[in-house]
Amino acid sequence: MRVLAQDVAKYLNTEVEVFGWVHRIRELGQVNFVILRDRSGYVQLVFHEKPEFTHESVLKVRGRVAANDKAPGGAEIEPSSVEVLSVADPEIPLAIYQEADKYPLEALLDNRVVALRLPKIRAIFELQSSLLRYLSEYMHQQDFFEIKTSKLISTGTEGGTNLFAVEYFENKVYLAQSPQFYKEVMVSSGLERVFEISHAYRAEKHDTPRHLNEYVSFDVEMAFIESEVDLMNFERGLLDYVFTQVAAHNQAELALWGASVPVAGAMAKAPVVDHEEAKEIITKETGKKVFEIAPEGERALCDWAQREFGVDAVFINGWPRKKRPFYTFPSADGLKTLSFDLIFRGLEITSGGRRLNDLAMFLDALPKFGLTREGMSDYASIYQYGCPPHGGFAIGVERLTARILGLLNVKEASPFPRDRKRVRP
Amino acid sequence: MRVLAQDVAKYLNTEVEVFGWVHRIRELGQVNFVILRDRSGYVQLVFHEKPEFTHESVLKVRGRVAANDKAPGGAEIEPSSVEVLSVADPEIPLAIYQEADKYPLEALLDNRVVALRLPKIRAIFELQSSLLRYLSEYMHQQDFFEIKTSKLISTGTEGGTNLFAVEYFENKVYLAQSPQFYKEVMVSSGLERVFEISHAYRAEKHDTPRHLNEYVSFDVEMAFIESEVDLMNFERGLLDYVFTQVAAHNQAELALWGASVPVAGAMAKAPVVDHEEAKEIITKETGKKVFEIAPEGERALCDWAQREFGVDAVFINGWPRKKRPFYTFPSADGLKTLSFDLIFRGLEITSGGRRLNDLAMFLDALPKFGLTREGMSDYASIYQYGCPPHGGFAIGVERLTARILGLLNVKEASPFPRDRKRVRP
Repeated sequence: MRVLAQDVAKYLNTEVEVFGWVHRIRELGQVNFVILRDRSGYVQLVFHEKPEFTHESVLKVRGRVAANDKAPGGAEIEPSSVEVLSVADPEIPLAIYQEADKYPLEALLDNRVVALRLPKIRAIFELQSSLLRYLSEYMHQQDFFEIKTSKLISTGTEGGTNLFAVEYFENKVYLAQSPQFYKEVMVSSGLERVFEISHAYRAEKHDTPRHLNEYVSFDVEMAFIESEVDLMNFERGLLDYVFTQVAAHNQAELALWGASVPVAGAMAKAPVVDHEEAKEIITKETGKKVFEIAPEGERALCDWAQREFGVDAVFINGWPRKKRPFYTFPSADGLKTLSFDLIFRGLEITSGGRRLNDLAMFLDALPKFGLTREGMSDYASIYQYGCPPHGGFAIGVERLTARILGLLNVKEASPFPRDRKRVRP
Repeated sequence: MRVLAQDVAKYLNTEVEVFGWVHRIRELGQVNFVILRDRSGYVQLVFHEKPEFTHESVLKVRGRVAANDKAPGGAEIEPSSVEVLSVADPEIPLAIYQEADKYPLEALLDNRVVALRLPKIRAIFELQSSLLRYLSEYMHQQDFFEIKTSKLISTGTEGGTNLFAVEYFENKVYLAQSPQFYKEVMVSSGLERVFEISHAYRAEKHDTPRHLNEYVSFDVEMAFIESEVDLMNFERGLLDYVFTQVAAHNQAELALWGASVPVAGAMAKAPVVDHEEAKEIITKETGKKVFEIAPEGERALCDWAQREFGVDAVFINGWPRKKRPFYTFPSADGLKTLSFDLIFRGLEITSGGRRLNDLAMFLDALPKFGLTREGMSDYASIYQYGCPPHGGFAIGVERLTARILGLLNVKEASPFPRDRKRVRP
């Protein structure tokens, strides 16, 4: 029976079987140490002969567990048998036992298959797995239905630009930029509360530390809300749950990055500022008059929130109508919108808002955004046959991952990131 | 405070607030009934005047709850106030209160935005939400990491045919047919046990009740297995968990379709038959000599398993090498493979197997499948640097949904199915 590295110390003076990768070989002559790595951690193997295998080879080892304060976990194994399940080439592009920080990002991306073995890199995706798990878990607990909707669309819903074209038999279709239309269909179908975790695509040509051309979008949509305030409050609860679970289950991954999540209840303290007010705060904080909320401004806002409210997160609502998609519900005066962004640790991780739910308002909005009813007939049919007041938001999963761990580039939070030049591996 | 339709009867003689869609209006003159539909069920409203709203309009209703044995749930509401939140067009393409069976599949797909409101259609996606939930839940409980990998690939892994091309900036890339390569990278990264739920794409031109050009693939991959037997046993446990949870939580949706899931423990009884043996059983059952396992044969096999083992499911292993992808681990004689399919209620819902994990075996396999190392250099790098014995499988989520509910066409199990002609809505 296999024992995981993390559990070896529970089997003192017992014969166990461990499987894993040769992480580090330390040859001292009389006694040689091999650190074996598995998904749970590390275990030390002690050899009196010279170990004949290469770094990263995969072993199946049987042996007796002995106490050793200096070994990881306080125990080591004296192997009675070693089977090499897979021999690794001695020439590895990146040494896996080195610190990931030693390598530039380009090297980590160019040698991705190997780089993902670096414990600090692997930890990113262990954390991301927890995020996916606890985000979904909360939604199901809150009586939401999980949906999977098509990523092949005939028209864009976010404005029609920045779409990747797909050769689809005799037709040309596009990769969806968001499941917005489909979420609204499913809400109005009577499911009322839906969420989806799927890929989204943006054919944006620029290359920034904040953007991916393919990313994982956690999308929420719910009926019978009054305004974006209900959505912000829902997101506070959601993130509070996720952070609490991550704090309980991912301390090892957080520690590798010297990171932590906001404490339980912190999200309840995140302030809500109006878009105009946000610009004033940024102007005051940075000493520079701002006309747009740019990345530097988002960081200044979070510094302000940390200082004033003890939390590194700010909701911005009251966005001008021209800055939001056509389906956003306008304020009473028609100039602003019932929409919001959430800035977390200096980066926008969420955009959301109440949506239109009335055919007349929809038809009124279309020309303002250069759209026509003919071009948006499927969308019109959502509002035509009884559509509850509703709204939702989306969280960029790589961005959330990156801001929790303090990654400098969102590409680090994608196992196989796609940018303008990068389509491999 | 809103009360859900299913809970109204708990509030006898109390004033409550309900939200929902006007499902059915019955005008009897002195007294008129309106059935309001929300995500939880139905509640009857009693009016003494003629109701002035249309079917499918969305209402917010306040009123007192009174007992009525003839009403759904044994209670009804006498409204003191009704607010119409959204007015529905009286001309609806499909009457929502009709049985879904009344409409041909084409009508349900052509009018999808409206058809999804039909309670029986909506129930498909309520069940599918549970499948997504419990599949993931089991995997996380079993110490698997959830991954999200790129769907934009530069080369195919399933043979290179049937790929949709994407115009990706200056490059041409393809929509992934499966996450096979990425799953193997992540397993060999040291995560050991991974799963992914994402879309997969097949540019197959034929239109059958079994195929979708875009489908949701539940993909599993795990290290340190011996053979496909470990995988079949794992899948037995997984499906047993999912069926047990669905039986506990989705009786309403199952009842609408007159469906049921296999009882707890049933999957343990599903027989494993060798590919050659399967053909012999089919020949015997159908009285026709078969050379390939075709849909009719899959149904005959399941009838046989039901009769002989009391379960409507069969594992077929020992597939000939030429019928499986290049990455499949061959049997000792090199002619067969350590791979399997699971046939459930007459339809293949899973394909899986042990994979190659040795560079020499991989290089030996490539020319047999018309592939070169140059074309597969990323794949080679998985095996080059220490790769544990591993394998996995994939379940088609729409197929599983369809076979649980007894849907005749897998398109019914996709909210927005894509086929050769259909790219809307």
